[in-house]
Parts: sequence; C-alpha cells; structure tokens
Amino acid sequence: MPRMKAAIFVEPGRIVLDEKPIPDIGPLDALIRITTTTICGTDIHILKGEYPVARGLTIGHEPVGVIEKLGSAVQGYREGQRVIAGAITPSGHSAACLCGCHSQDGAGTRHGWKPMGGWRFGNTIDGCQAEFVRVPDAMTNLAPVPDGLTDEQVLMCPDIMSTGFSGAESGRIRIGDTVAVFAQGPIGLCATAGARLIGATTIIAVESVPKRMEMARRMGADHVVDFTKADPVEEIRRLTDGRGVDVSIEALGRQETFEASLRVLRPGGTLSSLGVYSSDLKIPLDGFMAGLGDHTIRTTLCPGGKERMRRLMEVIASGRVDTRPLVTHRFKLDQIEEAYDLFGHQRDGVLKVAITP
Amino acid sequence: MPRMKAAIFVEPGRIVLDEKPIPDIGPLDALIRITTTTICGTDIHILKGEYPVARGLTIGHEPVGVIEKLGSAVQGYREGQRVIAGAITPSGHSAACLCGCHSQDGAGTRHGWKPMGGWRFGNTIDGCQAEFVRVPDAMTNLAPVPDGLTDEQVLMCPDIMSTGFSGAESGRIRIGDTVAVFAQGPIGLCATAGARLIGATTIIAVESVPKRMEMARRMGADHVVDFTKADPVEEIRRLTDGRGVDVSIEALGRQETFEASLRVLRPGGTLSSLGVYSSDLKIPLDGFMAGLGDHTIRTTLCPGGKERMRRLMEVIASGRVDTRPLVTHRFKLDQIEEAYDLFGHQRDGVLKVAITP
Amino acid sequence: MPRMKAAIFVEPGRIVLDEKPIPDIGPLDALIRITTTTICGTDIHILKGEYPVARGLTIGHEPVGVIEKLGSAVQGYREGQRVIAGAITPSGHSAACLCGCHSQDGAGTRHGWKPMGGWRFGNTIDGCQAEFVRVPDAMTNLAPVPDGLTDEQVLMCPDIMSTGFSGAESGRIRIGDTVAVFAQGPIGLCATAGARLIGATTIIAVESVPKRMEMARRMGADHVVDFTKADPVEEIRRLTDGRGVDVSIEALGRQETFEASLRVLRPGGTLSSLGVYSSDLKIPLDGFMAGLGDHTIRTTLCPGGKERMRRLMEVIASGRVDTRPLVTHRFKLDQIEEAYDLFGHQRDGVLKVAITP
Amino acid sequence: MPRMKAAIFVEPGRIVLDEKPIPDIGPLDALIRITTTTICGTDIHILKGEYPVARGLTIGHEPVGVIEKLGSAVQGYREGQRVIAGAITPSGHSAACLCGCHSQDGAGTRHGWKPMGGWRFGNTIDGCQAEFVRVPDAMTNLAPVPDGLTDEQVLMCPDIMSTGFSGAESGRIRIGDTVAVFAQGPIGLCATAGARLIGATTIIAVESVPKRMEMARRMGADHVVDFTKADPVEEIRRLTDGRGVDVSIEALGRQETFEASLRVLRPGGTLSSLGVYSSDLKIPLDGFMAGLGDHTIRTTLCPGGKERMRRLMEVIASGRVDTRPLVTHRFKLDQIEEAYDLFGHQRDGVLKVAITP
Repeated sequence: MPRMKAAIFVEPGRIVLDEKPIPDIGPLDALIRITTTTICGTDIHILKGEYPVARGLTIGHEPVGVIEKLGSAVQGYREGQRVIAGAITPSGHSAACLCGCHSQDGAGTRHGWKPMGGWRFGNTIDGCQAEFVRVPDAMTNLAPVPDGLTDEQVLMCPDIMSTGFSGAESGRIRIGDTVAVFAQGPIGLCATAGARLIGATTIIAVESVPKRMEMARRMGADHVVDFTKADPVEEIRRLTDGRGVDVSIEALGRQETFEASLRVLRPGGTLSSLGVYSSDLKIPLDGFMAGLGDHTIRTTLCPGGKERMRRLMEVIASGRVDTRPLVTHRFKLDQIEEAYDLFGHQRDGVLKVAITP
Repeated sequence: MPRMKAAIFVEPGRIVLDEKPIPDIGPLDALIRITTTTICGTDIHILKGEYPVARGLTIGHEPVGVIEKLGSAVQGYREGQRVIAGAITPSGHSAACLCGCHSQDGAGTRHGWKPMGGWRFGNTIDGCQAEFVRVPDAMTNLAPVPDGLTDEQVLMCPDIMSTGFSGAESGRIRIGDTVAVFAQGPIGLCATAGARLIGATTIIAVESVPKRMEMARRMGADHVVDFTKADPVEEIRRLTDGRGVDVSIEALGRQETFEASLRVLRPGGTLSSLGVYSSDLKIPLDGFMAGLGDHTIRTTLCPGGKERMRRLMEVIASGRVDTRPLVTHRFKLDQIEEAYDLFGHQRDGVLKVAITP
Repeated sequence: MPRMKAAIFVEPGRIVLDEKPIPDIGPLDALIRITTTTICGTDIHILKGEYPVARGLTIGHEPVGVIEKLGSAVQGYREGQRVIAGAITPSGHSAACLCGCHSQDGAGTRHGWKPMGGWRFGNTIDGCQAEFVRVPDAMTNLAPVPDGLTDEQVLMCPDIMSTGFSGAESGRIRIGDTVAVFAQGPIGLCATAGARLIGATTIIAVESVPKRMEMARRMGADHVVDFTKADPVEEIRRLTDGRGVDVSIEALGRQETFEASLRVLRPGGTLSSLGVYSSDLKIPLDGFMAGLGDHTIRTTLCPGGKERMRRLMEVIASGRVDTRPLVTHRFKLDQIEEAYDLFGHQRDGVLKVAITP
Repeated sequence: MPRMKAAIFVEPGRIVLDEKPIPDIGPLDALIRITTTTICGTDIHILKGEYPVARGLTIGHEPVGVIEKLGSAVQGYREGQRVIAGAITPSGHSAACLCGCHSQDGAGTRHGWKPMGGWRFGNTIDGCQAEFVRVPDAMTNLAPVPDGLTDEQVLMCPDIMSTGFSGAESGRIRIGDTVAVFAQGPIGLCATAGARLIGATTIIAVESVPKRMEMARRMGADHVVDFTKADPVEEIRRLTDGRGVDVSIEALGRQETFEASLRVLRPGGTLSSLGVYSSDLKIPLDGFMAGLGDHTIRTTLCPGGKERMRRLMEVIASGRVDTRPLVTHRFKLDQIEEAYDLFGHQRDGVLKVAITP
C-alpha cells in the first residue's frame, strides 16, 4: 500500500508531518495530488485544541492540485486536470443543499441538515496538507483551474476569499452603502475586497497592525481606523456624520468586535458575522435598540462547491481582485511544522503561507 | 380653546384621565376624532416607567376614528371619512423611508435615520387614548376603512396585527416550513396567524396559559407546547424529528425565549424577533453554532403607513384572518384607568381591550 | 430479461401500451415499482407531436411507487419504501443546481446548464407510465411518502402542485396582494391554491368551464371571471377599482392569456408565467408601458428534487391544501390508451386521471 | 411678475427658447435656480412628437442648481444650498412609494399608483431646461451636493447614472456573473459602469460606434462586440463557451436588441430592460424556451428621490465611477436650440451636453 506524507493532528499542541496510506476512493470520489495548499486560522484552533477533531486526522481544507484518479461513477473530468475544491464540500443532494444552504449539508442524516456538515476536509475526513487528498462527491466539488492562473493565484479561493466575499454578500450591500470591516486578517482583507467588488461606496476597515492597515487600503478600504488610537465606534460615528454604517462585517470572532459591529450600525442595518466565536456572546441592549432597530445579524460559513470556485477564479482571471499579496511566505510540505509555528504566532508579518509538497 | 379628555402619563406608576386642549394641526396634519382605541403592552412599559416618555404626554398609538379636520396642504381625503393610522407614522420623505425602512424614519435629522423614529404617537407626540389625536404627515398615514368593517374588526391593524404579521414576513417563510412562535400574547397570536397566512406548513406555538393555548390553535397553530410541562426546546426537537424549525418567532422579549428561539433553529434558519427587551441578551455559543450556522437574527418594528394599513384591512375584509376574538374586554374612555388596571395585571383572561370615547 | 408494460410514444398521434424490458439501474439510480401515476397536459403535446421526443420512449413524469432496487452507491433509503419523485429530477451537482436553478440542470454539459435539463422522465429518459421506472440521481430525487398519506393524496405533488405553487411563489406575493390567475385547468387551480396558501388577499380566477369555475372557488378564488361573458381585463380593472393586480399568473400558454396577464398588472407588478407556449409571443406596447412600468415577467419550470417533494407532502399532510378533488377519473394501466383519449379530449369534466398498474 | 428663459415644446419638431414667468411655489415645493442641466434622449422623443407632452411645457428633467426659495412647509434645507433632484420626483406618500416603487407614484389617484407617475419634470409639470424650476415635494427630492463636487461631476446623477445603474441592480448581478450590455449610448455606458461597480466579472458590451466602443472599455467592459462585424448573439455564445450570459441589459429600446438580449441568456438568466420602446415587442419562442427557461424579464424606470441621489453622488465622491467623460459638449442656455440640433442628430461624437444658464 503506497504511502504519503501528511500533516496529522496528534494531540492538542501537536500537528506533525508523518506518513500514512494514500487514500482509497469510492465511486463518487476523486483522488487529488496536491500541488499547493495553505494553513488556515481554523487549523490553529485545531492545533491548540480549541476545536476538537479526531486524533490521527490529516489537517487542511484548501487544496490546489491535479486529478490523480477518478471514482467509477464520476463523469465530466479527466485525470491530469488541474483543479481546486472548496474548503466546504457539499454533497449536492441533501435537504440543506436542495434549500440552497450547502454549507450545512446533512447528507446521511435522517432529515438532511447538519451544522457545518459541509465542512469535511480536515474536520470529519482527512484534509489536504498532504501529498494526496480524497475529494468526496467529486462532481459537486472539483473545479478546473483556468489556463494561465498559477496555483498561488487561486490558493485563496477555497476558503479565505469565499468566506471574506460572503461576508460582503450576506450584508446585501447596495450602491452607496457605507461598510465597516472589523479586523484585517486574511478573511477581513477579503471581506474588504469583496465589499469593494460589489459596490460598497465607503469602506472603513478597523485594524491596528501597520502592515495589515496598509494592505486594507490596497484591498479597497477608504478609511482605516486604528482601534488602539481611537475608539472605533466613535470614530465610525464621526466618519459617517452620526448616521452609522449600513453594513458591518465582523471578521475576528470576539465579543468586542461583535459588539462594536452592532453599535456602529444605523437602524435597519446588517451585521454580517464571519468570526468563529469561542464563548457566549452578549448583545448590548442599547446597541440592539431593545430589539426595535430593524437589525439583521447574519452568520455565514464559507460557501463551497465547484460553481462557487469557478466564479471566484473568474474574479481572479478578470483582474478584478488579486489575492497574491496575501501570500507572504512559502514552505515545502516537509517544512510544515515550521510553517505552523510561524503562522500560529503571526510572526514576521505573515498573512498566509503557501505549502508545496 | 376647546378641551378634550385624554389618558396622560403623569409619572411612573400613574397614567390618568385628564383634560387638555384639542390639538392644533399644521398644513400636513389631520385631526382625528377617536371612535375606538386600545391599550398596548408597550403602554404598560410606559406606565411602569420602564420606557421613558415626557410627563404630560397623551398615551396610545392605535387609532380608529373619523377625520375632523384636514391640514391646508392635505389632499385626497375628506372630513367625516372613517380612517385608521398605524402605530408607526412615517413621514415618507426621510432617507430611512426612501430606503424602505419606514419605521426608522429620521425626518428632521441631519442624515434621515432615527432609531424607532417612526414611532411618534404616545412616544414623542401626543397619542390617541383621547377624544382627538393629531396625525402627522396625514397623506402618508391615513387609511380609509372599507365600508362594512366595524371599528373592532380593524382595531388590531395599527399595531398588533402589523407587528405580528411582520414577524412571519421577516422570517421569509417558505412553503413547507416549520415555524415556532414563542409566547401567545396578542402579538404572538398575530404572529401565529401571520405565519399561517403566508404558508407555514407546521406551526408550533409555545405558551402556558390555557386560554391563550386554545386561542393559538384558533389562530392557526398545529401544535401547542406548554413550556411548564416540557422543555420547549426538547419538545420542538422531538416534533421536528431532530431537525429543528426553519423559522422561530420571539414574541415576548425575554432572555429565555430569545435563547430558546435560537436553540430550536435548524442550521440556516431565521430567528425573527418581535420582543421588546429590557436587558442585554446572551447568545449561547452552542445555539449559535460558534457563528458558523448560517443563521439570521432579524428584529422588526411594527410596519406602519397607509398602504400597510390598507393591506391589513383587506386581509380582514377577505375573511382570511379574524382578530375580533382578541378583543376580550370593552371600556369607555372614562373608564380607561380601570382598563389599564385590568390589562396591566392580565386579569380575567384579558387579551386586548377596546376603548371608546 | 424480465419485461413490463409501458405507455410508449410510437409516432405523432400514437401512444400505445406495449412491453419493454424492466430498466437496468446504475450505481446512483433506483428502480421504482409504480403504484400510481397520471397523465399531464404536456403528454398530450407529445402525443400530438407538438413537443418532440424519441420514438419508443416511455411517457410520464409523475411517479408514485415503491423502491424495488437501489443502486450500489445509493445510501439513506431501503427497498420497499414508498416514495415519489418530482417530474424534474435534477442531479444536484451541476452548475445550475449549485446556483439554485435545479430545473435547468446541465449535468454532463461543458458548462453545467441546459434548458429544461432537469426534465428527464418521459422526455430524455424513459418515464413512469409503466410498471417500473428508473430514477436517476436517486439520493437527490426520492422522497419518502409519510405514513397516512394515500397515493392519490400525493399524486399531484410531482408536477401539477409543484408547478402551480411555483407560479404563486415566483410572483413574490405579499400580504394584501391581489392576484389574477388566468385559466383554471389543473395547473391554474394549483396556482390559485398556492396563491391562497402564501397570503394573496384577493384572488381573481379567469375561466369559462362551469366545473372549473366552481373548483376555482373551492381552491381559494375570491372572484371567478367568465371570460366568455365579460372582457377579463376590463372586469379585473373594475374589481380592483382601476388599479390592476399586483401579480398575475398565466396558466394556459396562449397569446391572449399572456397579453391579458400583462394588461391587468398595476405598474410595478409581476407576471408569473407557467404556460407552455407554442408560438412567438407579442408584448403589447401599451400593456408594457413602453418598457417604463417597472414590470417583471418571470417564467418557472416545475421545481423538483426530494426536498421540494417533502415540503409539498407536508402541505398535504397538514391539511392546508387538498388536491384529491382534482382526480376525477381512475384507470388501470391496461386502460391507459382510453385514459389518454378521455384526458386528451377533456371529456366528461376530467381534470386529472389516476393510473394504477 | 418676473420672467425667465426656458426651452419650451411648441409642437412636434419645435422646442424653442422663450420667456415665461418664474414659477410660483406651494408649501411643499422649492424653487431652484438652475446652474447646469442637460438634454436626454427622451427629450428628443418629445421633440420628434414620439412622446406626447402638452404644448408650452418647459422640457428637461436633470437639474443641478441652487435653492432660491423654499415652500412654507419645507424643513431641513436652506436657501443658497447647492442641490440636485432626480429626474423622477416621487411624493413619498403614495401607495406606490410606500410599496417601494417610487417611480410609479400615483399621488392624487384613487389607489395611489400611476404608470410613470413619478416622472413629472418636463413631462407633466415644467422642467429644468430653464433659469428656474419648481421642485415638487422638496423634502423627498432635494439632495445637497457635497462640497468639492462640481456641477458636471453630478450632472449625470439625476437620470443617466441612476437609470444605467438600475439596469445592473435589476439584473441582481452576483459575483462571477457574465453580463452583456446592448448599446453603449449614455445609458448603456452607465449600465456598463454599474455592472462593473456591483461585481459583474465579465462584461460584454455591444456597440458599433468606435468612440462609444472605446468609452465602453473605459467604463468597465471586458469585451466589446461590434454588431456590424459579427452576429452579437453568436459572438456572445462563443465568448461564454456556449453557456450564455447570466444577465443581459437592453439599453436601446428596439426589437432587435430586446430579442438579442433574450437569446444570449442562459436558462435562469435575467433580461434587465432599460430601453423606451416605440412599438409592440416580439418574444421569440426559442429564445424564450417556450416559457420553460426560468427566465426573468424586468423593466426599470429611473429611480429618483433624494436618497438615491445622495448615494450616486457618494459613488462619484469616492472616485468609484467618473461620469465626466460622458459630457462631450457644453452650451449656454441661450444656445440650447443648437444643442438640441447637435444632440438630436448625434453629431460630432456627442454623448451628453452640459447646458448652463
């Protein structure tokens, strides 16, 4: 049985590069030989034991690669084709999918819904920080990479770009809207780029790390508020002449940013939440206008599926958005533990790393 | 200067019937002679001092009456016409109105938005628990009552029915949806009726007062869960075969109902909140699926304006919904202090009272 | 090779009952033993040669039956289970499906879209007017029938009810809306029922056959206009006090009904078209307000998939709508040519027939 | 009675500069001293007698100016303020407005709806190709011009930009969409800019005038198809690899462009129509997929009101879109007949003219 290298969760605090068998595939699956992948903030949560996964699991949910082998029932693809798959790999046939809520795919459950059920790579099945990965429901999930796009150009599509853009989309941004984006890590930066892409007219980013503040402007922010120098709620009130923003995007996952996202909203505004929270949240009575402010709070899990991937790659191909500046460091798969160390401690101005087997 | 009787907020704990001048009207206003009105749960909050209003203010925001006099710039109406106006009286010309968010009307502010700015009667201007009321922006707000409908038939339109129905509408209910409605007071009952009206296929009401449980069935509930006999979250999970509901409607304004409304949602579901809260709210991490459940939480303030009123009266006229059973007690305006006492203490199975000057 | 009886398209003018092999199934398919099915107006178009299909094809797209055999990759079902499948059987994994437009499924095409691609039964693959039918993409399409519902209760779900309801849904009906439904054949009757179900407040049906006019009232129409006795456009203008309707539903597929559907709309209204047209259509300049009326014209092909079927069966199970009165005649499969004759000529007040093998 | 110069419709074929009294204003009106205005394609229809207006009417619906006088009931503005008003001036209080359909404002009608009722300037009341104009319902319609924006920068907001952008908005464009825009006159160019602004990923413009083709690229088109050199339907099919476009925008008002806009749509796509048609339209059976293609055809009349204007000016102020290149010629009001001659005959590469009293 041929073996491969893979980054494996051993126990809280330890993800190590080890060997395991190359995956078998079923009739609906595909085997992908990974050419480039990356590490996500969620993987750091897994590493720290804050998000539980099975011991021995291969981590990683952002695959770029080449089709090595196709399941017997898979049609429409050929071996050797360059592809990506989303971090979320819906089945296409669950009740959730048929309701258009693919991320909450519950294929196999009695009723067809499962919280975060579409997130399988590096969560409920082996992920892609490895030489090979099995992609389930390949016909729903494999998206061919257009000629002329490099691995690094499409590396953000599976998760960061899809998630960040969805923050803007879930905000139902309209022409003329003012949008605040809290935190400018990779997801917040993509939310900024997404808000710009779909017509936000004034974008206010909130961040304090100088390099991220600079990148926020590059991704489309009109104003960048340093929350260490001014209260961002007051500053945003000032910038909007007292009105507040139409849409705020939370891209960190903390009480203070959630609460500020609510407080800066005008009545009738939408809080689009992307953060992964790790404790109960408090909704302040005044920020919520006692429940009478016609507010919407919407959370969005990264949209996946091959059509989403195709669309995001079109955005890249058309030159509308360029996510390459987000890739600040590059490692071989053999060096992945080093990459985890750098990324996990946010050293050296890291935004995203590229890992190549 | 001719005088009239009016229910006036004197201080926390005291709303009394007193005399004050019949209101003057400006060019865009109308003077309405009240023929029937009612008391709202919000008025009880005012009475108790939980919601602050100016001392001396006339209370009440649910007017049925006859046009006594029209402002010089008002066109399209005639004196003597029977009309209602919504509890919320938007101007029609603020930025909020032009964005379709009439309840948050900010006419007169720099930017055109104001939290709850559309709620004026018995809040920022004199209300309608009186012999006469001044209706501002009359052309936006006066809705003629169709012949053949009695005062009591349309008495719920200005607030209870508009609010309750909006709870269903904000839930974006689709054919085949299962909907839970927490609390079956007058607003919850109208939310139940509204959910039924727009296609909810299974409606689960949560309540414990027997008369309200019975009324919930009459208004369209398929199941009524007595929360004193079973944990409603578990019971709703059981009734939905483990899936949860597509939409939940909170119609009370308390932490426990808010939290239960979230916990019973399927991933991707919507919590439509109608309650007026009186303290910070907690979002439980698990019920919120750590922010990854594709949830929507939406609050809605009672939609007003003459077109909304016309539509609701059409619902009554067509026989689709009958809100008369909600009127359980009747008083003269002279007896309004007695009515407040009964309604405020929810004695004698009261749901809503009709007050006639 | 075991054989079965099936209604086969031989040539324009001839659909005959003949024998053919029981279908083989692939890994994603299921074989269903039909217990009840019906004939659709579209089948009559096929019979007459107005809609071309391959000679030798088994006709029929409204299956009720029992799972006889499951493909090797199908999970979540068991043999012997009672099921239905929609007339439209999307794959779940095409670009169209992933965009939420399952009816236009283009699985197998280069780009994932195909006009009417989701309609396979009795169109591009063998249908269900037979003893057995192969259901493709079984996990996307098989919907278990709840205990307690008879075959005839769910017989309208696969097509007529799904299509008719979608006419109302595509109209984006709101509380207080007035809706006109042109033609009260089976689909128009279900559009009437659907409009009622989702909150249309005044429903005006247009028809001339007395039995259908009567059934229209039973399905929820408030007014029925006999177009042989009055011009329906004028009559609807009169009934709406000159305003026109908010939504009109075309359920016949002819120029005159399409045109009238447009002419009765208020500015800003929506024409929801369900008809299958057989020639170019004319949009009258005045009815279209020269393109300046903020009109929407939307066509909808029958929504399919197991979740849609589950939802429709819930509507039946909850007692919200009862489609049994639409089944006016019953035949054995052996008598299907007789059934075609009766149904094709609309004799004896036929609305829908039930066919039982 | 003081008099002013105004461009007046005398009879078909003749719009002349003449003198008439400066308008009186009512309590809800404002008098604006025009500083810049322009001529619209619609005005040419009026000139030619193709669109009927009253003889003696002042033409023009795109005002930039200064508040000269405010009606007695108008609040929130001051004399001397620089403002614009939209081409469409809704009342804010009609049923149409309260339904969010401001362009079809029917203030004064029995039911509150009127086809194109929001279009008043130069249609049902005197327009703004004059030294002064009366703005009705001033509080709904006057939008202050931000400091730092010149008249010419905001001159396209009242009509061309609002209309063009609405073509994109009515198409409900999503990230990754391919959009075709038929005709690149001023409105088509703004539709192209609007599609780009809200996230269209591939934009295909259809035009044949070289200068307009070049401007199309400048406004955001990725491809420009010269319909005199290739069949645009075939060319767009080729560019989209056979799939068709997600959204097409018709910006001319002719049968051939309407028909092509439909033919290039993928199933499930949306035809957003901006053109003003002058004869019945034909919907080709095949392009319409016999009514089974899940198509949407939506027409949009220029959105107006002060909030729309504010939003468009924000787009200009933020640098997102620059419409100045559309102003190709400048005239004094005294030369307006000359301007009509140039613009009406599309001489000298004219796109839009600026007229300054």
